[in-house]
Amino acid sequence: MADLPEPITTLIKQLAKLPGVGQRSAQRLAFHVLKMSDADVLAFVNAIDSAKKNLKNCSVCGGITDIEPCAICNSEKRKNGILCIVANAKDVFVIEGMREFSGQCHVLGGTLSPMDGISPKDLNIDSLIKRVKAGGINEVILATNPDVAGEATASYLSDILKPLGVRVTRLAYGIPMGGSLEFIDPLTLSIAIEGRRDI
Amino acid sequence: MADLPEPITTLIKQLAKLPGVGQRSAQRLAFHVLKMSDADVLAFVNAIDSAKKNLKNCSVCGGITDIEPCAICNSEKRKNGILCIVANAKDVFVIEGMREFSGQCHVLGGTLSPMDGISPKDLNIDSLIKRVKAGGINEVILATNPDVAGEATASYLSDILKPLGVRVTRLAYGIPMGGSLEFIDPLTLSIAIEGRRDI
Repeated sequence: MADLPEPITTLIKQLAKLPGVGQRSAQRLAFHVLKMSDADVLAFVNAIDSAKKNLKNCSVCGGITDIEPCAICNSEKRKNGILCIVANAKDVFVIEGMREFSGQCHVLGGTLSPMDGISPKDLNIDSLIKRVKAGGINEVILATNPDVAGEATASYLSDILKPLGVRVTRLAYGIPMGGSLEFIDPLTLSIAIEGRRDI
Repeated sequence: MADLPEPITTLIKQLAKLPGVGQRSAQRLAFHVLKMSDADVLAFVNAIDSAKKNLKNCSVCGGITDIEPCAICNSEKRKNGILCIVANAKDVFVIEGMREFSGQCHVLGGTLSPMDGISPKDLNIDSLIKRVKAGGINEVILATNPDVAGEATASYLSDILKPLGVRVTRLAYGIPMGGSLEFIDPLTLSIAIEGRRDI
């Protein structure tokens, strides 16, 4: 494509580096950018700039924030004694998206994975223990993913946190709402039957 | 999500405006941007800036270019008498991606569509007629899409261009290479049989 203009081939290359964006999508996005108004492009570029410059990890919970400590850690309303442990900062968005959790969060920054060389000291576990020891927390909800690494991490944290005198809970396993039995994997179904409840 | 930091929610909103990017993808992209190095973010933002500032439509062919006229129109090597007509500037990328077409292109800027109020005067047809009348062109390949609007546009252009004494051709219809008969629609198959060739 020697005869194509350099600015657009560069833009396509840059866009194709984004996760989930292939060559075709990158082309489509590049032409979309060309069609956007100058003001829209400026707003877009400024949003990237501002996010990159102003966001850091909260020193208390490890989540993404532009103030220190973050709005969740700083809110008196959210000091209700419940702490939700998640693996990654983006999981906080999922929790907040629910609009029902009114406690605080703690971001581990990953899950235990000996194969990838991720041991407890690589996660925000020391700060978690400090928070729990500081008091004011009655319950810790372990909200890591229900996969091997997430389960191992939850189990490890449970062993550490229980002796500190807090209630340790785990998200319920079962069939997802709106799901169809036809498409549920056998393991989930067997866990859902095992955990059945009287109605 | 009142407690989430503004710079990231703004970035997610901006990313979600892109075509094909939903709320989830926008979140994933936003967190990817936060993980990118400062240099990578700068290169990305500069690519957007540069594309937006330096690219315009070529006055000759209507394609995207950073020089005037564009590299394709300006290249002596590509003045071989063959002109490929495409609907949109991004179609030029598809033609160039083939690395086999050595003629010139002409971008209509859309296809005829009375329903959407797009008539011949809204497309770069006057400039096409001027180019053909100026001479040096022996063949015009109509490479609009094989859909209703593309066919109508090709038919309209054919009627206009043939009296000017140039050969007017259309891309071949048939089964796509690597396709499977099982998944070919009946219309394409019937056209492929109609257009069968001796081997």
